[in-house]
Amino acid sequence: MPVLTLGELQARLGVQLQGDPAAEVEAVASLVSAGPRRLSFVVSPRYADQARASQAGALVIPPALTGEFSRPCLIAANPQATFARAASLLHDDLSHPVGIHSGAVVHPDAVIGENAYIGPGAVVEAGARIGPGCRIGAHCFIGANVTIGASCTLHPHVTVQRGCRLGDRCILHPGCVIGADGFGNAWDTDHWVKIPQVGKVELGSDVEVGANTTIDRGALDDTVIEDGVRLDNLIQIAHNCRIGRNTAIAACTGIAGSTRIGANCLIGGAAMIIGHLEICDAVQISAGTFVAKDIRTPGAYTSTQPLMAHADWKRNAAHLRHLDALVARVKALEKQLKKDAS
Amino acid sequence: MPVLTLGELQARLGVQLQGDPAAEVEAVASLVSAGPRRLSFVVSPRYADQARASQAGALVIPPALTGEFSRPCLIAANPQATFARAASLLHDDLSHPVGIHSGAVVHPDAVIGENAYIGPGAVVEAGARIGPGCRIGAHCFIGANVTIGASCTLHPHVTVQRGCRLGDRCILHPGCVIGADGFGNAWDTDHWVKIPQVGKVELGSDVEVGANTTIDRGALDDTVIEDGVRLDNLIQIAHNCRIGRNTAIAACTGIAGSTRIGANCLIGGAAMIIGHLEICDAVQISAGTFVAKDIRTPGAYTSTQPLMAHADWKRNAAHLRHLDALVARVKALEKQLKKDAS
Amino acid sequence: MPVLTLGELQARLGVQLQGDPAAEVEAVASLVSAGPRRLSFVVSPRYADQARASQAGALVIPPALTGEFSRPCLIAANPQATFARAASLLHDDLSHPVGIHSGAVVHPDAVIGENAYIGPGAVVEAGARIGPGCRIGAHCFIGANVTIGASCTLHPHVTVQRGCRLGDRCILHPGCVIGADGFGNAWDTDHWVKIPQVGKVELGSDVEVGANTTIDRGALDDTVIEDGVRLDNLIQIAHNCRIGRNTAIAACTGIAGSTRIGANCLIGGAAMIIGHLEICDAVQISAGTFVAKDIRTPGAYTSTQPLMAHADWKRNAAHLRHLDALVARVKALEKQLKKDAS
Repeated sequence: MPVLTLGELQARLGVQLQGDPAAEVEAVASLVSAGPRRLSFVVSPRYADQARASQAGALVIPPALTGEFSRPCLIAANPQATFARAASLLHDDLSHPVGIHSGAVVHPDAVIGENAYIGPGAVVEAGARIGPGCRIGAHCFIGANVTIGASCTLHPHVTVQRGCRLGDRCILHPGCVIGADGFGNAWDTDHWVKIPQVGKVELGSDVEVGANTTIDRGALDDTVIEDGVRLDNLIQIAHNCRIGRNTAIAACTGIAGSTRIGANCLIGGAAMIIGHLEICDAVQISAGTFVAKDIRTPGAYTSTQPLMAHADWKRNAAHLRHLDALVARVKALEKQLKKDAS
Repeated sequence: MPVLTLGELQARLGVQLQGDPAAEVEAVASLVSAGPRRLSFVVSPRYADQARASQAGALVIPPALTGEFSRPCLIAANPQATFARAASLLHDDLSHPVGIHSGAVVHPDAVIGENAYIGPGAVVEAGARIGPGCRIGAHCFIGANVTIGASCTLHPHVTVQRGCRLGDRCILHPGCVIGADGFGNAWDTDHWVKIPQVGKVELGSDVEVGANTTIDRGALDDTVIEDGVRLDNLIQIAHNCRIGRNTAIAACTGIAGSTRIGANCLIGGAAMIIGHLEICDAVQISAGTFVAKDIRTPGAYTSTQPLMAHADWKRNAAHLRHLDALVARVKALEKQLKKDAS
Repeated sequence: MPVLTLGELQARLGVQLQGDPAAEVEAVASLVSAGPRRLSFVVSPRYADQARASQAGALVIPPALTGEFSRPCLIAANPQATFARAASLLHDDLSHPVGIHSGAVVHPDAVIGENAYIGPGAVVEAGARIGPGCRIGAHCFIGANVTIGASCTLHPHVTVQRGCRLGDRCILHPGCVIGADGFGNAWDTDHWVKIPQVGKVELGSDVEVGANTTIDRGALDDTVIEDGVRLDNLIQIAHNCRIGRNTAIAACTGIAGSTRIGANCLIGGAAMIIGHLEICDAVQISAGTFVAKDIRTPGAYTSTQPLMAHADWKRNAAHLRHLDALVARVKALEKQLKKDAS
């Protein structure tokens, strides 16, 4: 991994530098754990004291903190995003291999782009196209006629089933499954008939898919994940869903079939969204929330229960079974009092 | 994939045909996306207008729509199931390979049935028996003494641990794990002792298991999934569960240990069913529902919270902590009014 | 698998024996399914009748049942833990292979301990250290500079990403992913910037990780799972969490980033715990419970909704949207009655 001077970082990140441009950093770290050759960051003046106590050799800071620290600082309007970019430069694995490992199984009719790497045990089937600069990790399975754009990283154990398409710069984490059959069954008298799933999955560019997340292929038409979508681990996206541009979804969330989610949404962990819904752009769904109807207005939505000590919960939750009766009792009281008053 | 005439489809599906038996179709498609060489379907008269606007070359229709369309139609009492069967015929991958790939690792004491396929990187251990016509995908792991019936399809990256048994025609999607140890721990003074899990998993015939779903082996006796069960992705079935015939379970559902679910149940996504319960036949559990007691009467059951705008939720949900007190207040009012009235 | 006499078991388990020390058992079984050469167990006098009816050749019993059964009995203060240990002895796979399978891909700069086994298709990258007596299953991926202690068992299809560390005697089930990137994204004007995740995962000793569970690497510092933690299947542990010693977590649970859970906690299945929380030692979280605030007092906590027949639920749940108004109505009634009374 490279060692960079603050001058180089300033130039490559396009931000201001306060202090010695020849000072070197070799990695990023948190304020607490950083040593003198580490770069850390301060997101707001609220953390100024913590930053002063840090051993970090250099900091990324917001303009409001200019001049506050004696060590070298990169000054950026968005310190978090700037720090993320600095981390990418400092932690870039420059030595990643290129070429097809002797233990990979690549069909002669597959097309592998320039400077791509195909790891040990990876299987690439007929008609698949792997773009230039891709890294296909150990044991990945790339089905027939899959198309993968440029500079994608597939970590080990990723499955991409036949015919699916990925854009550029996608990152797929271990164990995720793109394009397994959707859950389609027709009931016939006394048994299920499998409905073949003949659609595919389309991932846009700059999509990240977490470990062991599953995105099912469409039944007839496609499942679509638009550009810039970020998916955490253990998420289920069912057949024929569409997830809009830049929407980010936290772990353990399930989205049932044919639901369409807009752009720039934030979906908390372990949310559950039923099928055939429309959720508009710029919606925030709280963690643990159950969504069973369309959402047509941007904003934040929640459906969780508050936590209670178990004994309190026992006392309170039982009444939920009789809430309708309770409302009727209140209505009866209101009626009686009104009558008494008249 | 085959091109079929409507006459061939009629004969193989055992349904009525209205129109030219020589007309050809080569794939299935939705009403909206279908072109002239595609077969689509209409499930009820409600979609008749959409069907009229479709470019589909042929349709599967219910008897109530006989004579409504000028293009060729297959007339079937159950259009969805008939369409599913037609799709299976049209999208059958006739070219799937047979034999053991040179990159597979098959123990000499394993038995591989006729016309079976063992993909690159697949590992089949001693004593395993793979039935005729099975397709074992790339990187599958088939443990010692596993028995797999005829015509099963294991997609890439499936794990079947030692001694487990599958019936015929099962379909296992990528990343599913059959027969990992159940979660068994005995507390001893100051640490956990692992309880060895010596049961196995038995899958009946015609069982489908979704991507990254896990079915644990029994602790002492077996975990049993009966014939015709359909499991979606990312489902957890714990040790010693029994899932009855033809029950279908949607994604992200968890079923804790030793719970028995009857036949013909429908379990919605992200349901959570605790352990040691009995759920009778023909129960429908809504998505997102938490089940903590036996269900002895067929029917539909639910436990979810309604979605609210976050501000409304804040106002309302806090009262759940004081529901018992609220009920007491209503009771006090009733008592006082009764006293006042007397 | 070994056949053992009750005398050998008594000596190795350090418990009392009542009956013939030469009697042999060859496996464990449940009371219901046990035959004459099987060992079963009785956890308390409540199951004495069931034990009398069992065909089991021998039993592990608590001291309170001494003399109750005519067949040989091992008498133990903790019958469940003793039975678990007996099962480990009886079901020990004595024949497990040693050495590096010819189909494994081990980097020359990796260090493999004595008596370790590296299965077919396993990949071990540069700088990795595998401890003595480890069993690395088929298709496991061990990233660069990973350190694995002594006597760990990694079942097939496990991924351990670069730099992560495991203690001794860990058991990792198929499909689990240790050290995938945490979910870190910084928003910059109109798109997400990935925040590189440069921390790692540290697993203590005697940690068990279930099938398809994911534990993400830290963003800057590490994600830490302390000694003796037991994790079931399909659990998500996000970046920078710390899970305390001997805490056990059931399947389908999600724990969001930077949350710290104490020692000796029991977390039920499908619990959801949001990020940046502190949960103290000895907390029990019920299955299906949503935790959105710190817990500073040991004890049991719950937040689930009760199950209802769907028709009842429809009647009751709608009122949850108007709970605040209902409370206001009750308050108005109280005020009016107070006024009337004065």
